[in-house]
Amino acid sequence: MEYSKDIIVVGGDGFCGWPTALHLSAQGHNITIVDNLSRRQIDAQMGADSLTPIASMEDRIAAWKEHTGRAIRFENIDVARDFDAVTALLAASKPDTIIHFGEQRAAPYSMKGASEKRYTVDNNISGTHNLLAASVELGLDTHFVHLGTMGVYGYDDDGLEIPEGYLPVYVPGDDKQIMKRDILYPTNPGSVYHMTKSMDQLLFQFYAKNDRLRITDLHQGIVWGTQTEETRLDERLINRFDYDGDYGTVLNRFLMQAVVGHPLTVHGTGGQTRAFIHIQDTVKCLALAVNNPPAKDGKVAILNQMTETHTVRSLAKLVADASGASIAYLDNPRNEAAENDLRVSNKTFLSLGLQPVTLAQGLIDETQQIAAKYADRCIRRMIPCVSTWTDNQRPGVVPPKARKAA
Amino acid sequence: MEYSKDIIVVGGDGFCGWPTALHLSAQGHNITIVDNLSRRQIDAQMGADSLTPIASMEDRIAAWKEHTGRAIRFENIDVARDFDAVTALLAASKPDTIIHFGEQRAAPYSMKGASEKRYTVDNNISGTHNLLAASVELGLDTHFVHLGTMGVYGYDDDGLEIPEGYLPVYVPGDDKQIMKRDILYPTNPGSVYHMTKSMDQLLFQFYAKNDRLRITDLHQGIVWGTQTEETRLDERLINRFDYDGDYGTVLNRFLMQAVVGHPLTVHGTGGQTRAFIHIQDTVKCLALAVNNPPAKDGKVAILNQMTETHTVRSLAKLVADASGASIAYLDNPRNEAAENDLRVSNKTFLSLGLQPVTLAQGLIDETQQIAAKYADRCIRRMIPCVSTWTDNQRPGVVPPKARKAA
Repeated sequence: MEYSKDIIVVGGDGFCGWPTALHLSAQGHNITIVDNLSRRQIDAQMGADSLTPIASMEDRIAAWKEHTGRAIRFENIDVARDFDAVTALLAASKPDTIIHFGEQRAAPYSMKGASEKRYTVDNNISGTHNLLAASVELGLDTHFVHLGTMGVYGYDDDGLEIPEGYLPVYVPGDDKQIMKRDILYPTNPGSVYHMTKSMDQLLFQFYAKNDRLRITDLHQGIVWGTQTEETRLDERLINRFDYDGDYGTVLNRFLMQAVVGHPLTVHGTGGQTRAFIHIQDTVKCLALAVNNPPAKDGKVAILNQMTETHTVRSLAKLVADASGASIAYLDNPRNEAAENDLRVSNKTFLSLGLQPVTLAQGLIDETQQIAAKYADRCIRRMIPCVSTWTDNQRPGVVPPKARKAA
Repeated sequence: MEYSKDIIVVGGDGFCGWPTALHLSAQGHNITIVDNLSRRQIDAQMGADSLTPIASMEDRIAAWKEHTGRAIRFENIDVARDFDAVTALLAASKPDTIIHFGEQRAAPYSMKGASEKRYTVDNNISGTHNLLAASVELGLDTHFVHLGTMGVYGYDDDGLEIPEGYLPVYVPGDDKQIMKRDILYPTNPGSVYHMTKSMDQLLFQFYAKNDRLRITDLHQGIVWGTQTEETRLDERLINRFDYDGDYGTVLNRFLMQAVVGHPLTVHGTGGQTRAFIHIQDTVKCLALAVNNPPAKDGKVAILNQMTETHTVRSLAKLVADASGASIAYLDNPRNEAAENDLRVSNKTFLSLGLQPVTLAQGLIDETQQIAAKYADRCIRRMIPCVSTWTDNQRPGVVPPKARKAA
């Protein structure tokens, strides 16, 4: 590392934010976590909980200090609603880097109903925009690192390798000349959550162009795994493991289901191909992004933060074979293609030296050290996915047309 | 007209919303105006005012009733902040059509500072999303008509005719095959205001695809003129004429400047080419859009609502020649290309029968009946444009770099 940076980690209490804060602190950076603890409140609202026991922020920070001697500062701020607090913090700390994890990040949660859709849009857009607007207002030369998602690309399955954010296209001009343009990859988000990340891209495009903000947008795959080198140091530092139908990501859900003797729940044919990354690699990617800010050239740096692609079906089979669990094929509550191929370029992180944790390596550790160890904390009624993408998919719901006529 | 529709006009107190409400009421539709009167509040906040005297909403509606016998209902609701009121209104009225003008619509205002940027983003995104989310939640089959802007396309000047929303492009596949895709035109908004309209497009794309909402997005040019057939009936029905540096559109500003003996203020070289439409054509286009809802095919209908293109310089010359006014070339506070060409397809409205009011016809009427008649109401200090696009353009402001080092 060249020098110690002052870094604000917005959303530093969450599944990706917390281990990132620890990893960057371990690297010698000065970390301030900004979080309104909304993830804990959503758990309480849903009656869900992380499989792993999550300590209070105070205990987490104290444990980190005990083990490493390093201080992490914590500010309880709602960046979407308290602009004055955001401005005051940024004015006082003039951070080198702001890492923004502070968005509602579950697609199923974002589709539960009008209230969750609205929370996702209002929180994600206003929060992101407040941070950008405050940076401009204060004249800061801060590197803004944002967690986006592979889902903004959509899963159109036209045989293209997904590029890193920009797509070269050819447009026929009026005079029959063909012009080449490098455009922001046309987004096709599949949920309100993914839509907000697509909208974020337009915020970044504008603020990079108009104000020359330096922005890195990380289009992350589905994260699996729980622990990192740093979160393993103490049980009070342990990371979240979500297995419920809204916040649990597919692989972690399978692992937990296998351990508690629940069939592995595959929605649709399981032919959906998705991109994956281990949480240990997430934190490494963040460190690489932080240490390689883009030039102030008006263009957002977009990196694909993923290491492997798999079909949901093949993941289920992998876990079933290892554990003896059965597989249950259920209706798909999502509005998405049943089957798709997916190939993704992640050349930037590989060129920066990332050496990925593979699924084959990490899976057994994860099962033994997390899913099996904390199986008795599982709340079984939280396992099913209950959020549906459209009204007609909801059991017992009268479809809009019939309702209008009635 | 086939039948009388129940239409909610959100933003029906504004410059485009009010004459549209009257025009549709005159056509026999049942109109409910929803507005929080924010445009009047922004005037008060800026110390500005419409050149034409604007009656209270109550007086406007009473005058309309007197002249036509038709009732217009008014609901004072902030659609961005009062979701419950939005839901209650939609549930009770089950409108055939919602026309959404309820967004902050001035680019210079949206660039004044962090507060105005945030208001523009929060108000425009949450307002639009609330209306969409409420429609889905209630299972309404409502046609949603939204006022977008030509500005979402940007002014890249690459010789292409701007299509209606979608651009056919060719993408080279991995196997050297060339694939054709019809993509949402890649946006390049030039202000926070324009950016929100680009973000709106993603909201529409998602809700059309996921929930099969029927959505028409009208990408409107710069509106000029003041009166329509309906607003001329009574002075209490008169429409806004904004000439201030934030809300005044370029041609109306020139007309007013000519009348009060102020030099016509051209920013930069005046080589910016923009698309224009007369307010009378705006209301006709809205009626055409309302009467031609798109199919429920998952695709947003995008129409370019403009009739002519002109350079700012040529408009200034036109007004100067007619009035004897001088032209003052000032620094451009905007971050935009100094010169650009612009050709735009507006084939849908022409095919639906629109017969545009041309600049040549309307200009003299406008000058005599509005600018000259109300010239004594002009507040001269509101004429200059004071919003700047970036910090470095602000006189006396230390640029960010110098500030950081200090």
